[in-house]
Amino acid sequence: MARASRIGEFELIARYFAPLARGFAGAGNLKSDNAFLPADAKHDLVVKTDTVVAGVHFLADEDPRRAAAKALRVCLSDLAAGGATPFTYQLSLSLPKGWTERWVAGFARGLASDQRRYGIVLRGGDTVVAPGPLTITITAFGRVPRGRGLTRAGARAGDRLWVSGTIGDGALGLLAARGQIDSRFLEDRFRSPQPRVALGARLLGVASAAADVSDGLLADAGHIGEASRLAVVIERERVPLSRAARRAVEAAPRLWAHVLGGGDDYELVMAVPARKATALRATAHAVGVQVTEIGHFEAGHGVSLRVSGKPARVTHRGYVHF
Amino acid sequence: MARASRIGEFELIARYFAPLARGFAGAGNLKSDNAFLPADAKHDLVVKTDTVVAGVHFLADEDPRRAAAKALRVCLSDLAAGGATPFTYQLSLSLPKGWTERWVAGFARGLASDQRRYGIVLRGGDTVVAPGPLTITITAFGRVPRGRGLTRAGARAGDRLWVSGTIGDGALGLLAARGQIDSRFLEDRFRSPQPRVALGARLLGVASAAADVSDGLLADAGHIGEASRLAVVIERERVPLSRAARRAVEAAPRLWAHVLGGGDDYELVMAVPARKATALRATAHAVGVQVTEIGHFEAGHGVSLRVSGKPARVTHRGYVHF
Repeated sequence: MARASRIGEFELIARYFAPLARGFAGAGNLKSDNAFLPADAKHDLVVKTDTVVAGVHFLADEDPRRAAAKALRVCLSDLAAGGATPFTYQLSLSLPKGWTERWVAGFARGLASDQRRYGIVLRGGDTVVAPGPLTITITAFGRVPRGRGLTRAGARAGDRLWVSGTIGDGALGLLAARGQIDSRFLEDRFRSPQPRVALGARLLGVASAAADVSDGLLADAGHIGEASRLAVVIERERVPLSRAARRAVEAAPRLWAHVLGGGDDYELVMAVPARKATALRATAHAVGVQVTEIGHFEAGHGVSLRVSGKPARVTHRGYVHF
Repeated sequence: MARASRIGEFELIARYFAPLARGFAGAGNLKSDNAFLPADAKHDLVVKTDTVVAGVHFLADEDPRRAAAKALRVCLSDLAAGGATPFTYQLSLSLPKGWTERWVAGFARGLASDQRRYGIVLRGGDTVVAPGPLTITITAFGRVPRGRGLTRAGARAGDRLWVSGTIGDGALGLLAARGQIDSRFLEDRFRSPQPRVALGARLLGVASAAADVSDGLLADAGHIGEASRLAVVIERERVPLSRAARRAVEAAPRLWAHVLGGGDDYELVMAVPARKATALRATAHAVGVQVTEIGHFEAGHGVSLRVSGKPARVTHRGYVHF
């Protein structure tokens, strides 16, 4: 929410920050969201940093437990896309001048609840009070078997494009939270994302590349295509929608732009070789997550959306960061 | 600067965040600034997160290169206190609404310069635009030989208390930056801290505990005493001052409170067994850093300051965080 031109962020990173990571294999020149570090002889450490700001990434008056969950989970979602099992995190909290102990107590309860849920524990951090909105930075740490972490760069031509769960609930949920759509289900999907942590760790040996749907399906599938130097084709009919999202787009077809471009779903988008389809279905079934094939990768570049088999114009590509 | 009651921060962490790290050896229950993770067979990873906010931790209109250096160096200073050699970092940047590309370019040049200076490289991060002041969170990573990282908890009764460099320049430098003292030297010491990275890595096998002087000499020496369950005695006459700081306290003795309690020096304060004094001097000489013995640890608790051999009242303990 309240993000302007996302070109801004990508260009900024490419122009000014990517050169600072040059020559460091584990950083993938910042094109991948995760950083990899050697851990022990058998594992790599997967590291992800995410910042969320009240009124920008979550509601300005969000319940502190939900704010804690949102901050942690957007980060765990990236680790899941890397195939990593999370185990610890660092927390930086910039509290607004008017912070209350009651708020902090609720925030800590939210963290404690998610620590149990995801098997993680706080390792360290920093707390400051500053003018401006509540700002939470999480650096989350996970482990993957050495050299096997998933990135956006491993897709091959012919791989199928799959997604977990349902797409569009996050962006429509933001509209619901703002009172523009009437759906408690969608609002909950925006305010309490469910990162696919259990599925992510089981994608090793199944998916060839993955990302989480944080910027929007078209953008995030596009990131895999770009990193893998391939074109992505998505068939809109196959994109899985929740009942509430289906109802919303049937009532107002312009909402398709939010569904495909709006982000904040925290589902996984995966490149999977055709021969691994059965393995993917079995592993997703084992952890109780729905997976759906929605397209494929082929030689070329860019993202194509097909509606009823015909190419559609993509006007709203990706969740706009700022 | 602009920090209120630091009790606030310590109590907040003890009450709400320390329980979230309970049972995790590497977190030291958040009493140590650094977190330790196993790296390879021979090393531990030392991890530190610090957040700095424009107008709170550095001047609101600070030069972007200096802002970059400040953010990185306060974090590297903690790694140095852990005896770690830094090698990479994650960057989270929350830009104010009115950010300019020129500012970001200068900021990136500052990071690049410090990357060369300290042999580190950016690994990943996040960039957002949000209302409120520029906020920079760095999570820095260093390595120490397995199990040998320094914490605040290793001091023994009889250990001598040493500091690197000169004390008080940071706090007096803030006054200089505000135009309350006329000294370019002091202003530079505040605006461009010089973390003792080379000395820190050489303290293994020499110091028994260490911290950096970020909260203030009395507070940070006190942190070592508290974590080691010992009393700390500091003799004010022996505290090394720069010529500019000496001049300032001679002109206005009330400035001693800033010198001893004001923080932002980013020097190291160390517990060193008496028999290691020669080794410490030799190693400090090798890296061109002055070290000075200023007191000792003994059975008991709390920090005592002695002025001309007599106990002094400590009214201003530590840099006030908020």
